[in-house]
Order: sequence, then structure tokens, then C-alpha cells
Amino acid sequence: MKYARETLKDVEGYVPGEQPKMPGIIKLNTNENPYPPSPRVLQAIQEISTEMVRKYPDPVSLRLREAIAEKYGVEGPDWVIVGNGMDDVLSMAVRAFVDPGDTIMSPYPTYTLYETLAQLHGAKMQYVDLDGEFQLSEQFYSTKARMCFITRPNAPSGVLEGQSAMERLCREFDGPVFIDEAYADFAEDNCLGFPRAFENAIVGRTFSKSYSLCGLRLGFAIARPELVREMMKIKDSYNVNAVAQAAGLAALADTEHFRACTSRIRKNREWLTQALEGMGFRVPPSQTNFVLAQWTGAPSAREIFDALRARAIIVRYFDAPRLRDALRITVGSEREIEALIDALRAILAGEDAALGAVAEA
Amino acid sequence: MKYARETLKDVEGYVPGEQPKMPGIIKLNTNENPYPPSPRVLQAIQEISTEMVRKYPDPVSLRLREAIAEKYGVEGPDWVIVGNGMDDVLSMAVRAFVDPGDTIMSPYPTYTLYETLAQLHGAKMQYVDLDGEFQLSEQFYSTKARMCFITRPNAPSGVLEGQSAMERLCREFDGPVFIDEAYADFAEDNCLGFPRAFENAIVGRTFSKSYSLCGLRLGFAIARPELVREMMKIKDSYNVNAVAQAAGLAALADTEHFRACTSRIRKNREWLTQALEGMGFRVPPSQTNFVLAQWTGAPSAREIFDALRARAIIVRYFDAPRLRDALRITVGSEREIEALIDALRAILAGEDAALGAVAEA
Repeated sequence: MKYARETLKDVEGYVPGEQPKMPGIIKLNTNENPYPPSPRVLQAIQEISTEMVRKYPDPVSLRLREAIAEKYGVEGPDWVIVGNGMDDVLSMAVRAFVDPGDTIMSPYPTYTLYETLAQLHGAKMQYVDLDGEFQLSEQFYSTKARMCFITRPNAPSGVLEGQSAMERLCREFDGPVFIDEAYADFAEDNCLGFPRAFENAIVGRTFSKSYSLCGLRLGFAIARPELVREMMKIKDSYNVNAVAQAAGLAALADTEHFRACTSRIRKNREWLTQALEGMGFRVPPSQTNFVLAQWTGAPSAREIFDALRARAIIVRYFDAPRLRDALRITVGSEREIEALIDALRAILAGEDAALGAVAEA
Repeated sequence: MKYARETLKDVEGYVPGEQPKMPGIIKLNTNENPYPPSPRVLQAIQEISTEMVRKYPDPVSLRLREAIAEKYGVEGPDWVIVGNGMDDVLSMAVRAFVDPGDTIMSPYPTYTLYETLAQLHGAKMQYVDLDGEFQLSEQFYSTKARMCFITRPNAPSGVLEGQSAMERLCREFDGPVFIDEAYADFAEDNCLGFPRAFENAIVGRTFSKSYSLCGLRLGFAIARPELVREMMKIKDSYNVNAVAQAAGLAALADTEHFRACTSRIRKNREWLTQALEGMGFRVPPSQTNFVLAQWTGAPSAREIFDALRARAIIVRYFDAPRLRDALRITVGSEREIEALIDALRAILAGEDAALGAVAEA
């Protein structure tokens, strides 16, 4: 195209997981929370006033940042930046700290958006393979880059890197370390204390998973005020709409709902893991709301994916190194997990007479 | 700051107009619509379901883009891109079509965000002065740049550039021409037909002003599919939240409310213009929902701004070339316009005993 930038010529942009519209489908592909958000969130939406719609929202989401600072124990709102989903926060971080031509590094495998953001910014992506247990390798610490992104717990494996490894990384890496804690509310610990200890630590969070607010787009990061200030320069003037700000405040206020919901998902995760292992899948220990079910037998993971799909169960398949022999499965509701287990048993028992044919359909 | 980019060192970011929280204030500084959105919008918000909050929104806003395509008479949704406010669309356009180091051009004065976006992207901003009547000068056509942004009707003057000048610009300019029609719903014509006629025309629109949806952040652009495709690469994965998508659909469906509201604002604009002219202001003919009230007498425009503020009436003052002797005033409701006119009469009659003192307060 005549006016296109050379930099973007071969870029496809990020391809999000499928959002199928068919009713009755069991959707275990994009790690949504199977349970509804707090009733307070729905009430806050019901109470959106004409004036909140008509007028611009607070451009700097001050009340929400104050509530986040209080909830997560940092000094004040200048330690917090809020985004239109965590993706917005990630994009601001790249544009605030990386020059085009610079290198961004990340362990592999990881959330694929980092690479897309690097490409869109004209930066290079440097991956360093995680080891067989999905932990940082020694090589990771000795690799240099302008900025580092690390999903902890890791996606798509679900595995939690040790705290001491994270501390070593922040100490040794010369540049901002963005710790993407999208799934940390399902894990046994987190790095929220890091920004106080390390001047280069940025901890990203989202309301999408643990608070069930995917549809409203709300994420944030905690970091030292000097880092937050740089990201605020990049921020769209009014980046978080009035409804998302109100919903975020309401969600934060309902600790009881949050605890009940996340602990239910953790419990279901153990059940799902055991069931999968019982069928012969290898499942790295997950600290998230999904599991990576590894499978090297016949039918292939890809064929199982297709066969599940034919039964209206959608999981995530990545056609990428180290992931081709695996399915990433969201920890759904009890009913959804049961349906998934039943379907997998049937598929593995060969009840889908012509697996190949189903895959083609 | 240790990790800051040199490019951003002196960048402040965009400074949006003040959003004061005090109740009872008359807010005529950020061109919000004084009338509520369509009741259908509020109904759509009331009807937001748990599922819409819990699940990711449609990443490509397909239904909304289809509705926009139909409403504005373009072939289909591939001619439309939707953003988290028009600011998001503007940012995507810069990043899709401009390389760092390139030049972006715009007439002066104009919407100040273009310059901020250029700075954040490491691009240069080239202004060419509008003539005394706020029309494009001959020099504008002969200036070269990678991309051109033009607000039509112009902000902050409110003046509408002629259609034939716009056609000439699209014909002669070698690069994308982004025609920012944020205020076109208050004007006597628009450039919605341009993308069909010119391969380089991008027409930007917002739901903020004419549809009263500032708080929800919703904007879009119409352009040829080749241009839309490039901007889609830059788009955040889920850039428009579920509430904004639903509200946009509801707003588009209520043509009657839209017509009544925009024609009422146009009527009030004429009334406000005449009243200001009657007091000695010079008011360029506005085709928007604001007027630029030029004033070279005593007290100064800046002093009038402060005196209005002391009376809880906020208008916009730009401390910038060609604008220091002027106030930009949003066309408010009938009650707000009356209060403004009364306040201006009192201020100009010297009823604010110590204008200087008020300004200091």
C-alpha cells in the first residue's frame, strides 16, 4: 500500500483468541473468569448517570488510582497508572522506554503481544528459551536489552518463576523490567513489593481475569513515580472511560466476592489438573486460571483441539515451537470442566469415528 | 530519569482542558454537548449484561462498524475503524503512516494533540499559518510532509474551510490527509464522500460532541480499506469496551434525538455569536459547537477569563500565538449562555472592582 510504513509491511498485528458468537458454546480459550463480576460492579453500571456519559471522564483516573494505591499498599496515586486494559499499559511502557531499533527481551514461550508491540514500535524482539520446567535459564540473566517483559505466572505454561529469580533479574538487568502479573491473583505470591525495592520494576495488573471485567477494559501498573510519569506522557488524553473507572472502584471494594471467586477457581484448577493427568496429559504446575495440557500421543493435540471444537468446546491451540503438542485450557465453571473432561474422554477413547474428517470440517 | 527516552525528555504530553469537580460550575471549556445523550444510550447501558462485562468485547467492533458504514454511506465495515475516542484513532493514524523523524503538517492554529502525537512518535511538526480569516494559505499546498492533519471545521476558530480547497489539498498532497471532523455534525457540509474520491483521505469522527458521549470514549474514521488495514495493525487488541460499542449502536439508531440536539446547538450558537458581537467581541463565523470570541480591549482576554472563573464560569484560554486575545467558549445550554452573557456584561462594565486582584486569587 502506497502510504504504508516499511516497518509495518510484514506486521500482522496481534491476533486475539477467537470470540465466537454462537450460543451454547463452552469457551475455554481466552482465560475469562467463568463467574460473574461482583454485584457491586453491575450496580455501579446501573447507576451511570447522564452526566457521566455526557462529560469527559477524569483524564488521569485519580480516584481509581488512589483506591488501587490503598488496596495494594503503595504510597499514593503517583505510583499507579491506569490503562484501557493491560494491553494499553503494555503499549505505553514500550513507547515510554524503548527507542525504535532497540531490543526488547522476554522468555519464550510468553504472551505473544510483547512481540507485536515491539514490531509495531520498530523494535527487535529477543527471546531466551525457558528451561524444560518453564523457569528462567542462566542465559536469561546475561542477555542485554533495553527493556524486559516477563509474565509471572508465565503464560501459556501457568508456571510461577521463583521470587528470588525475579529479584536477581531486577538487580542485574539494566533497564525497566515489566512484570506482567495478569494472573497473579490466582498464584501463591506476587511481586507487588518490587517497585519499592527496585527502581526498574513495573508490575502490571488487570481487572479482566480475577475481577471478571474483560468487557470493560481495565488494567494498571505499579511502579516508582519517575517511571509512571514517563508512561503518563504517552497515555491517550482520556484513556479510560467513565464506566470502566466506576466499575473498577466498585470491584475493588468487594474483597469478599474477589476472594470467594479466585479461591473457587484455584480449587477447580486442581481438579482439572488431576483429571487431565489421569487421562495421560502432562500438566506443568499452574498458578493461573488456565492449564497447559501437554500431549504427545495420538490423536495429536491439534486433532484433539479440532475434535473439541466440533463438540462446541473451544480451547486455545498455538501453532508455535514448544506449544504444538499442547492445549491451553481456561479453568471454567464446574459445569464447563465436567463437559470438557467428558469430551476429552470420549475423544481419547476413539469415539469420534473419523477424527481426521472432523478436523477438516 | 535513568530509563527515559531522549525523544521524550522535553515532552509534557497532551494537557487536556480542565475537568473541575466543583458542583454548580458552568463548564464551557471542553466543548461537551450541554444536552443529554439519547435515552436509548442510557437504556443500552442499563441493559449491559453480566456476560458483556465478564467476556472480552468484540476486538474489531464489527456490528458498530457495520452500523457506521450503513449510516454514513460507505461500502462496508472494512472502510471503518473504531477507536477508544477519536484520540485513539488519531494516534493509530500517526503510528500507521509516519516514521519517526518524518514530518507531520497542520495548519496553525489547530487541535494541539497532533503536535503531542508527533512528539511522542519522534516526528517533527510543521505548522503553516492559516490566513486572517482562518482559511488555508497558498503556502499550505506547496509544503511537503509525510502526513497532514486538518481539523474541519477548524478548532479553535470554528471556521469551515471550503470544500474545493479540501479537494485541492487531497489531490495535491502526497500522503494521507486526515480530515478531523470532530465538529462536522454542527457544520453545513462535510467530507464524508472524500474517501471514495481520494485514496489518501481519512475522515475522523467522534461520538463525544454531537452524540453527547464524551464519557464513553468513542470515535471512528472512514477511509479506503487499504488505509483502514494499516491502522488496524496498530490497534490495541480490544480497544473499545463493550459499553462503548453498545452505546454507539444505540446512539446511531436515534436520528431524531441527534437532529433535534444538533439543530438546537446551532441555533444557540447564532444567539451567542450575536450577543458577543453586540458586546464588541469579534467572532469568526463558527460551524462548530463553540465560538472563538476575539477581544483586544481592556480588560484583557486573559483577565476576562479569570473574572469568569471567579464567577464559576470556565471557558478555554490558550496562551499561544494568535489566541492570546481570545476566549474559546462552548455553546452551552440556554441557561448557561444567559449566565455567560450576564457575567460578561458585568465584567466589561467594570463591576468586578479589582479585576487584577480576582485574577491573582
